[in-house]
Amino acid sequence: MRAGPAQPLRKLVIVGVGLIGGSFALDLRRAGLVQHVVGVGRSAENLQRALQLGVIDEASQSAAEAVRDADLVLLATPVGQMAALLREIGPVLAPHTLLTDAGSTKRDVVALYRQYLPQQLAQCIPAHPIAGAEQSGAAAARYGLYQRRKVVLAPLPETAAAATQQVAALWQACGAQLEVMSADEHDAVFAAVSHLPHLLAFAYVAMVAGKPDAARCFDFAATGFRDFTRIAGSHPEMWRDIALANREPLLADLQAFRRQLDELTAQLQAGDGAALAALFATASEARNTWFQRFNAP
Amino acid sequence: MRAGPAQPLRKLVIVGVGLIGGSFALDLRRAGLVQHVVGVGRSAENLQRALQLGVIDEASQSAAEAVRDADLVLLATPVGQMAALLREIGPVLAPHTLLTDAGSTKRDVVALYRQYLPQQLAQCIPAHPIAGAEQSGAAAARYGLYQRRKVVLAPLPETAAAATQQVAALWQACGAQLEVMSADEHDAVFAAVSHLPHLLAFAYVAMVAGKPDAARCFDFAATGFRDFTRIAGSHPEMWRDIALANREPLLADLQAFRRQLDELTAQLQAGDGAALAALFATASEARNTWFQRFNAP
Repeated sequence: MRAGPAQPLRKLVIVGVGLIGGSFALDLRRAGLVQHVVGVGRSAENLQRALQLGVIDEASQSAAEAVRDADLVLLATPVGQMAALLREIGPVLAPHTLLTDAGSTKRDVVALYRQYLPQQLAQCIPAHPIAGAEQSGAAAARYGLYQRRKVVLAPLPETAAAATQQVAALWQACGAQLEVMSADEHDAVFAAVSHLPHLLAFAYVAMVAGKPDAARCFDFAATGFRDFTRIAGSHPEMWRDIALANREPLLADLQAFRRQLDELTAQLQAGDGAALAALFATASEARNTWFQRFNAP
Repeated sequence: MRAGPAQPLRKLVIVGVGLIGGSFALDLRRAGLVQHVVGVGRSAENLQRALQLGVIDEASQSAAEAVRDADLVLLATPVGQMAALLREIGPVLAPHTLLTDAGSTKRDVVALYRQYLPQQLAQCIPAHPIAGAEQSGAAAARYGLYQRRKVVLAPLPETAAAATQQVAALWQACGAQLEVMSADEHDAVFAAVSHLPHLLAFAYVAMVAGKPDAARCFDFAATGFRDFTRIAGSHPEMWRDIALANREPLLADLQAFRRQLDELTAQLQAGDGAALAALFATASEARNTWFQRFNAP
């Protein structure tokens, strides 16, 4: 979608001041779209760092106090912390305050909005900015993170059109490309292209680490291994939460992957070179076609 | 292993002038260890390019003619072409000429040496330099490719110790770290850390490409997908050959991976967050520990 111009914010509250939330604040400030940024978090040290770096103007350890007169609240914490946060801020959220998030899954976050803010759904705009989350902490925040990155908005039927438009306009001011889809579609798509690869990478590294000759194997792992397993270095608890939150689409994709792997295994067992070459060619062409588009300026 | 000094080569023959063979020639020449380099290949255009770039001094389309008075012959072609090459050069190989290769699998190459050069095994030094093979052609050759890279030598019981020593010394002069192991151990280790990830990446991309909503999925694939699938863009026929050549170790690793994936799937089905987090933590720690060592200066 293309949004119109954004309304400048007097007060923006970022709950979870790390790469995602911090970079959003930096870009909005540079665009002249925010006057005052309040960071909320559990780590006083991280908030102090965010203040020093100019990512936020004010630090708070109470979400309920911070959100009182905010124009926009962004929940940029792991999804696992959102229930407690919504329970805390729901009762004090002003009618003009918009509430959005950066959760990696959307059906579960939608369910939380419905549970804790049933009367305020017009103000809620579930969202997912697609930007790496490997680094954490305020020091990871940087200008331009969202340039040409996709941000998915998954508004509820109850979400006010003007609320979706305003959040879209703010992300657009950060350089992001906006996409609107349902929470169901979001979760199915990300199960396939993000969550499943993480599970496969975790399973693969765990399997190698469990081999009797694991140390010898790791000694000879090189650049192919490095890139294939990068996402296996991700945060275990964060990915436990994502896997559980997106269980059904993930189980379906795990089954589809297993069928594909069984087919490949049978071809290898049979020594069927033509079938293997055809399968590899399908994958290779699809991957290289995708990469050309992904990498295009 | 640490080898002593290399004997300078009067004539080096590179069969297959691409990234691997071309870079070896460039580094040996810079080290003053070779007087004359002959490139052999099926593409006259590629050989012309190699001449222009100074990678080789002379081009030949006949391996049998080129190898006649060579000190060292390096087969840097796909393994699938080696049977025909060995059949051609076996009868004309001089007793003083050393023969080595850069094949990604070793048991099958050893079998070819035994089949086609049964009387000349003392001169044969099976080898595998571990360097990316994504690029091809003479234009990919470059100085310093092997700096700090591992090169595995898998000498036969019949290989002369002096022959192994000389090939090791030449690779060492290119900056490589030499490792000696049996062909069996080589193939088991590389099944685990290189060949299996390729098969998993191929199977994964083929599975996504086969989804009804594949186009939509690819639209939202980002940097995690990019890195996880890079090796799925590899050459289909080359990987068909590697998979078939290393079938038994690969089938064993596919089975071990499948067991690990079944365990993960059962944990997800049961909603067992603690077990998932433990599995992810095992993988994440193993991967990050590996990467710190791999990336260390």
